[in-house]
Amino acid sequence: MTSLTLYSPAGVVARAAPLRLAARRLTQLGFEVAVDEAALARHQRFAGDDAARLAALHRVAAQRPDIAMATRGGYGLTRLLDAIDWPLVARSVEHGTRWVGHSDLTTLQTGLLAHAPGTVSWAGPMACGDYGGTEVDDITDACFREAMDGSLEAVGFRTEAGFDGLEARGTLWGGNLCMLASLLGTRHFPRINGGILFVEDVNEHPYRVERSLLQLQQAGVLDRQRALLLGAFTEWRKSPLDRGYTLKTAIARLRAATKTPILTGLPFGHMPTKVTLPVGARVDLVVQGRDVLVAWGRQHTH
Amino acid sequence: MTSLTLYSPAGVVARAAPLRLAARRLTQLGFEVAVDEAALARHQRFAGDDAARLAALHRVAAQRPDIAMATRGGYGLTRLLDAIDWPLVARSVEHGTRWVGHSDLTTLQTGLLAHAPGTVSWAGPMACGDYGGTEVDDITDACFREAMDGSLEAVGFRTEAGFDGLEARGTLWGGNLCMLASLLGTRHFPRINGGILFVEDVNEHPYRVERSLLQLQQAGVLDRQRALLLGAFTEWRKSPLDRGYTLKTAIARLRAATKTPILTGLPFGHMPTKVTLPVGARVDLVVQGRDVLVAWGRQHTH
Repeated sequence: MTSLTLYSPAGVVARAAPLRLAARRLTQLGFEVAVDEAALARHQRFAGDDAARLAALHRVAAQRPDIAMATRGGYGLTRLLDAIDWPLVARSVEHGTRWVGHSDLTTLQTGLLAHAPGTVSWAGPMACGDYGGTEVDDITDACFREAMDGSLEAVGFRTEAGFDGLEARGTLWGGNLCMLASLLGTRHFPRINGGILFVEDVNEHPYRVERSLLQLQQAGVLDRQRALLLGAFTEWRKSPLDRGYTLKTAIARLRAATKTPILTGLPFGHMPTKVTLPVGARVDLVVQGRDVLVAWGRQHTH
Repeated sequence: MTSLTLYSPAGVVARAAPLRLAARRLTQLGFEVAVDEAALARHQRFAGDDAARLAALHRVAAQRPDIAMATRGGYGLTRLLDAIDWPLVARSVEHGTRWVGHSDLTTLQTGLLAHAPGTVSWAGPMACGDYGGTEVDDITDACFREAMDGSLEAVGFRTEAGFDGLEARGTLWGGNLCMLASLLGTRHFPRINGGILFVEDVNEHPYRVERSLLQLQQAGVLDRQRALLLGAFTEWRKSPLDRGYTLKTAIARLRAATKTPILTGLPFGHMPTKVTLPVGARVDLVVQGRDVLVAWGRQHTH
């Protein structure tokens, strides 16, 4: 049986019921589920104080379950960055642990690439948001489970016209754009050349998305990538000042700033349907017409 | 007479009336006011497209008025950073132009310090927000005019207990925290050692303020400063998840992360009453009891 531990490295789990429901569902799906002893700890807006959350992260890393899934994101990993035992986390991955999550977990996954290059973790679902609600999204669930058992080796999606024939190979990395930007200038930001970068965000107006991506561009990061994949940008509100400024015009501005191809349509972000992706893995990106394939399986290697 | 040019480097001036009112008031106060030809230009959410705003900035820099005051902030300077003729702006300062503004203007002021170290600009009022409303704040106005005519050489404010006797000398710099953080990792962020850094923000929850300041800390910036002055953090909304997490607890966490003294109470930010401060100038910081003095006049030099 595949062991799966639920732990809380960031925001407080405000209600226990969604976490319990997620644990039950994941058990029914065949996982041997354990809930970390501090998963429901509370300290202000955090799932326990910094020491408690750091201890939980290190405890899970030492226990080396097959899968370490965060209960939720929120805010909290930024506080732990300077204290995380990165070699301990990296060793758990070498021994087979797959760390899964998104949003604030981008901080952990990106930091891991900075401190232990090539160490793969997984951008994917989290317990409360994806398995603790009234419904479980079929695609999210199937994608997650197949990625975990190794049967999923590629994800595909539709993008805009204009990229037919594009092929690129490089390190897949990224996640939440705010969290990526919040690591710039620190030793927790990895130096990845020729990568395939993907980003998503929630509650951020397009001008803020644009500003963060321009920061990545001005920091030299965008130009060093072979492609930028845009996931979902959700739950932002229009302003009367926009006057025709939209996410689309922001993307047009970014395309003028970098030669790196910017592809929209990646089904990933703060929405029910999200693919599971190997952060830090070498992937092949292939575009045929408007169909994009991101493949990490051996058969797709050129 | 002191010449003062109003120009729009960032967000669109949605209504002309506040700008006209500001121009009239500043004229009545004795300035020889000019309104840049593109101050009311419109392109989406911007005061003209990038080329138009860049041209306006360079036009004002070439004209060298005594004071170059932005009409408003918003978002827009980030787009211009890689194209600004920094030596042209720096030469205007050498010839006496005082660039004044806050919010998005932090981008210009901070970039100027990166590209032309020691070049002083002024964190202070802007036309529409500070001179275009129903009332003009007496302190903001007096402070601005005295700073401009050279009679103001220090500002004072009350802080928390615990810093009595603190003295520091260094380069004053800072402004809007979001904008500062958005420059990290790029060539537009200055390397300032032993400085007095000040920050403010608007519409940012304390966890986001904390995250940006932790980024500055993790980038090594905070530890390199002699003091951090916190201005106003306004218009953010509490979340039910906060459960006792406040701006105060965020500051406590930051104090645990750096030995640099963090002083609250600087009257600067997105609020009517704001002091005018020389960004890039050498200043003396002196605390007596709970009274803080930030002095840039010669008589205050130790």
